[in-house]
This record gives sequence, C-alpha cells and structure tokens, in this order.
Amino acid sequence: MKAKTTWAGHKMKFQSESRGHISWMDSQAPFGEDTAATPKEYVLQGLCGCTGMDVVALLRKYKQDFSGVSVEATTDLTKEAHPHIFTDIHLVYEIQGNSVDHEKAKEAVYLSKTKFCGVSAILSKSSKITYEIRLNDEVIERHVD
Amino acid sequence: MKAKTTWAGHKMKFQSESRGHISWMDSQAPFGEDTAATPKEYVLQGLCGCTGMDVVALLRKYKQDFSGVSVEATTDLTKEAHPHIFTDIHLVYEIQGNSVDHEKAKEAVYLSKTKFCGVSAILSKSSKITYEIRLNDEVIERHVD
Repeated sequence: MKAKTTWAGHKMKFQSESRGHISWMDSQAPFGEDTAATPKEYVLQGLCGCTGMDVVALLRKYKQDFSGVSVEATTDLTKEAHPHIFTDIHLVYEIQGNSVDHEKAKEAVYLSKTKFCGVSAILSKSSKITYEIRLNDEVIERHVD
Repeated sequence: MKAKTTWAGHKMKFQSESRGHISWMDSQAPFGEDTAATPKEYVLQGLCGCTGMDVVALLRKYKQDFSGVSVEATTDLTKEAHPHIFTDIHLVYEIQGNSVDHEKAKEAVYLSKTKFCGVSAILSKSSKITYEIRLNDEVIERHVD
C-alpha cells in the first residue's frame, strides 16, 4: 500500500495520491489557505470510512434492509506539548432503514470496533474511542465511558 | 475537529467531509468499485501530509531555498487475523533545491519524526516508521532499522 503527498509549491497546499486517486490537503490560516481538509482530518475521515464500510458489509451480511449509514467522528488535539495528537474520539453512527433490527445494528458496530476495523485498532493505541448508535434518529446505544 | 463519512447508497462508496471540504472513499473490488482511495490509504496520506507540512515549515524557518518536497509512504497490511493494521511504514522524503543544506534537511525530517508530527506519533504506537531522505535525487540519509 502506498500514499504520496507532494507540496504544490505554495504555502501549505499538498497534492495527495494513492493508486492514481488524487486529493488535496491544506492547512488552516495562518500557515495555509484552508482550500482542503488537513492531514489529521484525513486520518479521522479514514477512521469513519473504515468502520462505516464494516457496518455496511455486516448489515448486508445480516440481510438488513438499510437505506443509510453515516459515521461522524469528533475529537480534539492535545495542546500542551508537541506532538499534538487526538484526545478521546467520539463516533456517532447513524443508520437509516425501516426494518433494521436494533440488535443487528449494535452487533455490526461492536464487531467493527472490536474485531474488523484496522484504523480503530491503530488509533485506539493512543486515543479512547467512544461511540453511540442512532437508528432512524433514535439513540439505541451509547458507550461514552 | 470533526470528520463525517456518509454511505453513497451503492456498494462501498462513501462521501467524506470535514468543515465543508468533500472527498470520496471507496473499496477495491470485489466489495467496491475503486473509484477513490480507501480509508486506510487516506490515513497513510494523512501521515505523509502531516510530516511533509512540518518539513516545509522547518525548511522555511531555516531559510533554505527549496523548490520541492514530497513524502511517499509504503506499507503493507497484517494478514493473519483481524483487524488488519499497517506493518512497518517506510517514508521517502524527496527534497529539491539547489542550495539546501544537507544537515538542515536531515534536521527538519528528524524534528518532524521525533517532535512535531502528531500522525507519526499516533501511527508509531502500532508500526515501526523508517525513512530515507533524498536531496536532489541523492540519498543523504537512510534509517531502515
């Protein structure tokens, strides 16, 4: 697996690439011009995408009729000394679907967190990852401790 | 800091967002259609971007006249059991610039790795990160142990 970022020659703008797929990174003011997400935001997006894909795959395996899945991560950066790393990370899973079983939704998220999601496993070495699950806008599980 | 990924409703395509900056994620076949980088590739891009921005900032601080900086990461995934995480990660820094001092280039990379780069600090909890530095296509430093 490879990734490459190349400075665009101006302030803090970088082009980012894996297997020909291009995206952009930038820093916020005053160092950058905020034209794209930051490197740390991409890491956090990678966490959301990794566990989100697990949940989609598991809900399919469980033959659940779902129409939507999203994962939102909220965290902060440590401020005291360098390097600045993520503090606790809180994930909110939102699942939509009229006939999705509560227990199957909980099991999908639990198995992603504890077994399948490599990015969760990596980030949990330095951050506590808590989560809640909303099914059709109702909170069906909350792990914040 | 926030990130959100939302399933696009088809196979493994997800829209990814931070502060209004949108990108896409996908999985490779057979689960996805490989229309975009994968979540783990974004994590690796985040590593390259984070340390690349440090190097640009430090070379500027050292008043070096550089014209190019890129960082390429190569890794693999563990294969035996879930979760699949990164094995060792090797970074290649390429710096271009006719009057860049070798020692300043080495110091910029070293300080990013050991002090400033939060993504390096996070990923190094589960992967050994090695690196080499190329200045105008000549290898000036190599740390592979």
